Amino acid sequence: MALVKPVEYEDAPPAVRAVYDDIRATRNTDYVNNFWKILANDPATLARTWQETKSAMAAGALDAMTKELIYLAVSVTNNCEYCIHTHHAAAKAKGMTPSMFAEAMAVIALANANNRLANGYRIDVDDRYRGPA
Amino acid sequence: MALVKPVEYEDAPPAVRAVYDDIRATRNTDYVNNFWKILANDPATLARTWQETKSAMAAGALDAMTKELIYLAVSVTNNCEYCIHTHHAAAKAKGMTPSMFAEAMAVIALANANNRLANGYRIDVDDRYRGPA
Amino acid sequence: MALVKPVEYEDAPPAVRAVYDDIRATRNTDYVNNFWKILANDPATLARTWQETKSAMAAGALDAMTKELIYLAVSVTNNCEYCIHTHHAAAKAKGMTPSMFAEAMAVIALANANNRLANGYRIDVDDRYRGPA
Amino acid sequence: MALVKPVEYEDAPPAVRAVYDDIRATRNTDYVNNFWKILANDPATLARTWQETKSAMAAGALDAMTKELIYLAVSVTNNCEYCIHTHHAAAKAKGMTPSMFAEAMAVIALANANNRLANGYRIDVDDRYRGPA
Amino acid sequence: MALVKPVEYEDAPPAVRAVYDDIRATRNTDYVNNFWKILANDPATLARTWQETKSAMAAGALDAMTKELIYLAVSVTNNCEYCIHTHHAAAKAKGMTPSMFAEAMAVIALANANNRLANGYRIDVDDRYRGPA
Amino acid sequence: MALVKPVEYEDAPPAVRAVYDDIRATRNTDYVNNFWKILANDPATLARTWQETKSAMAAGALDAMTKELIYLAVSVTNNCEYCIHTHHAAAKAKGMTPSMFAEAMAVIALANANNRLANGYRIDVDDRYRGPA
Repeated sequence: MALVKPVEYEDAPPAVRAVYDDIRATRNTDYVNNFWKILANDPATLARTWQETKSAMAAGALDAMTKELIYLAVSVTNNCEYCIHTHHAAAKAKGMTPSMFAEAMAVIALANANNRLANGYRIDVDDRYRGPA
Repeated sequence: MALVKPVEYEDAPPAVRAVYDDIRATRNTDYVNNFWKILANDPATLARTWQETKSAMAAGALDAMTKELIYLAVSVTNNCEYCIHTHHAAAKAKGMTPSMFAEAMAVIALANANNRLANGYRIDVDDRYRGPA
Repeated sequence: MALVKPVEYEDAPPAVRAVYDDIRATRNTDYVNNFWKILANDPATLARTWQETKSAMAAGALDAMTKELIYLAVSVTNNCEYCIHTHHAAAKAKGMTPSMFAEAMAVIALANANNRLANGYRIDVDDRYRGPA
Repeated sequence: MALVKPVEYEDAPPAVRAVYDDIRATRNTDYVNNFWKILANDPATLARTWQETKSAMAAGALDAMTKELIYLAVSVTNNCEYCIHTHHAAAKAKGMTPSMFAEAMAVIALANANNRLANGYRIDVDDRYRGPA
Repeated sequence: MALVKPVEYEDAPPAVRAVYDDIRATRNTDYVNNFWKILANDPATLARTWQETKSAMAAGALDAMTKELIYLAVSVTNNCEYCIHTHHAAAKAKGMTPSMFAEAMAVIALANANNRLANGYRIDVDDRYRGPA
Repeated sequence: MALVKPVEYEDAPPAVRAVYDDIRATRNTDYVNNFWKILANDPATLARTWQETKSAMAAGALDAMTKELIYLAVSVTNNCEYCIHTHHAAAKAKGMTPSMFAEAMAVIALANANNRLANGYRIDVDDRYRGPA
């Protein structure tokens, strides 16, 4: 059970309700998931984290599904159970097929392995890869 | 300086040369980067790692640039200097623009933050996100 | 369930009982938590870990609650479920309010994000921040 | 060398200059460190990261130096060279003495060790530490 | 519950059955554990991961139990619950006694602590330890 | 350059000299490496860390070289440059051959990959691997 209690809409102060309303409008759903209800115990962090998430995850130069895959790669590497479940669902909602997920997992595993080969052998960066483009 | 010396083509045994040749053919370049030259001290690991990398990074259900972004997300999270430099270059070669890289970095930072909010508050996974699809 | 069984006081050898007694005296409680009962399977590690913990967590130049917040920051970053629960409780016992915990969580999330921006962009340390004070 | 070039004030667009000006005013210094000059390549991330940092690091229920110590604990655990140097300097500027730093480092080391003892033995959380307060 | 369903032998395509058969033959048991049944949703990753695991974990210059201890050290550091349970069992099957496990855990804890002391103080590598042997 | 200055023998207080003397006697060398000279700025942490290291790394149920391999596995996973260099040297001094190191690196890479497959797919621990032995 979480360290603090979720804040339900009917018990929430106006600043929290405004965030919940924006989450619902942005995602076109009535459901507000536990992440936001727990953060709502600290309205300032709730508001900042939602703005940050809404901005960073919106389609831009990268499409929204690619951003979910990047988010999943981080969450799997850090072993965040909550984030893996929710962003696996989000990626599927944005078009990720089982094959895409399987390939993403294979790349995540490979990168975690190769990161240690490079770090462990203390491999020098080739001159051609150094410096700003 | 790396813990072991890079193995140059002219000093390499046939099994290592075969891998170098395949790297060159697959990537359409003469350049073999330090990662492979260091792994070549252990020909079995070199051969397996190259096969694994070649298979996992090839375009499939996901395109090659998306796979590079996933690889970068892992490497940045783990702080693998070598891998960040080389896969930043690889992603650019496969079409990543500066805007795409900036957006990917923003998602990587966000996910690393939110992972800790979810883990730190011990947020319970919502029932709807649990279990196989 | 833990990989080994907890060692209860009545079954413990004298060296383990001495540690349990010191834990109780130092913390002014009869309760010995699972961490120590599991470590007791290896009395040498139990004794060293308790001495280390007792010394490092005692008030000194930093007060005891600040040390608990630092401990929590590490535990959240590493996702140690056991340590988050126990040191959240310890920090509260030493005066951490819900607002303090919320602010600490916001800093932990921020630092985890900014760490990746700095590492991922390979940002050079400014000359003025280098070297011993 | 960083993957992108720092953006100097004289070359910066108005939105970036506004952030630099606020950094200078908030910190009461002319110096803008590399972190912000590199992020400035992506003005949206620069603005969000600065707002987040300014809000989260300001004194509140926790004083500013305690927040720097928490930030350091995360940065040391993740091995962010840039962040260790800059936040070591920031913590000193806010009153951290060498003894405080030494004690913080001892707690960081201890927590990283004990996190693995708890995770590795799969120690069950004691009932009394579970659930919201 | 896992994100995808385990693939049972009777429902598996021939390529997956071949891997299951090889696992059984190599390990001299009828039991195929969940790790492989889940990976079987992606037969290419299953085949590559099994080959890699079979090769890397086989006795060579290092005996099989030592390799299990190294695997455990990584899994404890990363907090992989599944891997800790299965490789703790595998190490025991290959001769790891409770004392050996306790000593390994003590070294894992120590290394995680000392890693942070070295990284956090930014300790310079002594000249004598640099460079290839 | 390290955040604090190394403490040389001739400038060290008696408590620090006693540790240096014990390091030299235990290792049968005159050389005291930077790790200890930096920790010496905090004599209490120096003394505790040395005692802990001396105890945990001594041959017992596991031989000294196996302990160095476990230490290396943690250090490579965490990317501690200092620790990789020094414990690579220590392992060699205790009998690690290039083949042993190469095999250890292959296991470390494999485990880091498989940890993410297990965590990312949220694979359930098989009943037979649960609970104390």
